[in-house]
Amino acid sequence: MPIDPVLALNATIPPAHAEWDTDDVILYHLGIGAGIGKATDPAELEYTYERNLKVLPSFGVIPVFDALLNMNSIDGIDVNFALVLHGEQDLVLHRPIPTSGSIESEVRVAGLYDKGKAGLVVLEVESSDADGPLFTNRFSIFARSEGGFGGDSGPKPGNVAPDREPDAVTASPTMTHQALIYRLSGDKNPLHADPEFAAIAGFPTPILHGLCTYGAACKAVVDTMLDGDAARVARYQVRFSGIVFPGETIVTSMWDEGDRIVPTAATEERGDTVLSNAALWLRSPS
Amino acid sequence: MPIDPVLALNATIPPAHAEWDTDDVILYHLGIGAGIGKATDPAELEYTYERNLKVLPSFGVIPVFDALLNMNSIDGIDVNFALVLHGEQDLVLHRPIPTSGSIESEVRVAGLYDKGKAGLVVLEVESSDADGPLFTNRFSIFARSEGGFGGDSGPKPGNVAPDREPDAVTASPTMTHQALIYRLSGDKNPLHADPEFAAIAGFPTPILHGLCTYGAACKAVVDTMLDGDAARVARYQVRFSGIVFPGETIVTSMWDEGDRIVPTAATEERGDTVLSNAALWLRSPS
Repeated sequence: MPIDPVLALNATIPPAHAEWDTDDVILYHLGIGAGIGKATDPAELEYTYERNLKVLPSFGVIPVFDALLNMNSIDGIDVNFALVLHGEQDLVLHRPIPTSGSIESEVRVAGLYDKGKAGLVVLEVESSDADGPLFTNRFSIFARSEGGFGGDSGPKPGNVAPDREPDAVTASPTMTHQALIYRLSGDKNPLHADPEFAAIAGFPTPILHGLCTYGAACKAVVDTMLDGDAARVARYQVRFSGIVFPGETIVTSMWDEGDRIVPTAATEERGDTVLSNAALWLRSPS
Repeated sequence: MPIDPVLALNATIPPAHAEWDTDDVILYHLGIGAGIGKATDPAELEYTYERNLKVLPSFGVIPVFDALLNMNSIDGIDVNFALVLHGEQDLVLHRPIPTSGSIESEVRVAGLYDKGKAGLVVLEVESSDADGPLFTNRFSIFARSEGGFGGDSGPKPGNVAPDREPDAVTASPTMTHQALIYRLSGDKNPLHADPEFAAIAGFPTPILHGLCTYGAACKAVVDTMLDGDAARVARYQVRFSGIVFPGETIVTSMWDEGDRIVPTAATEERGDTVLSNAALWLRSPS
């Protein structure tokens, strides 16, 4: 049986080490579309140049991405990566992310839900640096054809956008070779680069990484609603509900809900919703 | 005295070690403009994706770039980097460059020429891997206000473009944030990122790295004249004769001269010549 819930939920997973520096942060920001058409904008340069460099909270997924790639080494988990979809991402920022870092991460299977034909694996990765806990990721992985092991079907998604006009809408362009830059931050899945592989998966061209869209929407919210103060985001949760083709413009609609911003994202070209059930919880300005 | 020719020409410089992998090669290619508008073109993917990855010969400047940055640690050399211009580049490829590598480089001052108000320092860097010599770079550095130490004014530049219509002309677009990507390959001079720094240097915006233009023209020649066979280039020499602003299109004109291609490059927008006295010497197809 590919998913054995008793084994998986009790598996001991070796901790993982990761490091990053300013070049990694800048490469990530360029990968999610920073700098496009704004190379000399001082606010934009805080994403792409060492002086006054800040770190988008969504960068927190990058240093621990290997935990996802190594999922099949966990006792009780054996999924077919060709049938895997990234369902949701939930990232808690215990502190703002520094421009360079060194972390140890504890990985565990935090949840296993039976969706009938599919299994949903929730992988939790808690990362700490020398000053203590830094961020906690929850990757929700939808493993098609791996359901039927019995048990709960999991919680319903929250963070529904309010039934009123959004408080702001921001358009984030991407380039047709955007995914080729983004993948250098660690996700080398050929689905995002190789036209033949994408065709086998049923797509007319390689698709943008979901976590690239995640970063672009995060930047849109930080720039539009938080006056560029990336340090104010305490948690960022989304559901991946559609795909973006590189070159499309990501339109992020945002609702100010007091202690949190609720965004949704869609493609300008096709109007398809690509991120939903999303929220950024805020901490007070420092 | 900032330049002491006797000391400099006899200086002992510690050898330098460098390594690269496929990510470094792909990042370099994206930095010189590969992939723009051609993300799914199979020939272009040989620059930007691991499968069938090739290496532009101009990548050979990257792993040894620190030799230039460390120039002032050489006995007899003490130049003001704010007044330094990259005058010429000459790169000999003893073999095609592998997609990953580990080299040791011997550095020496190969020439010092007195241009009157300026001094021209020729820094030679010979790089070898486990299989022997791989490439030899000659950086010609024009140090303004450092002339007057006496001696020869140096050879006149060669490789004059023939007095006939070019055999091919290729336009290579760049993005307005092109230099922000290119600089992640190692040249962090703020002249290419920081609008304030560029203004002090007399430019309306940050300028593209000369070696970025060098790479873009190399790619244009390889794609247009050599059917994409990067391994055929045995030597690539240019003179930097003008600047490119990020976002401009680099127009490379090429003349087939039998055993070599003679290119010149200009900006489409302003018509200014940016590379001249250039040649790519060829080896027979393998």
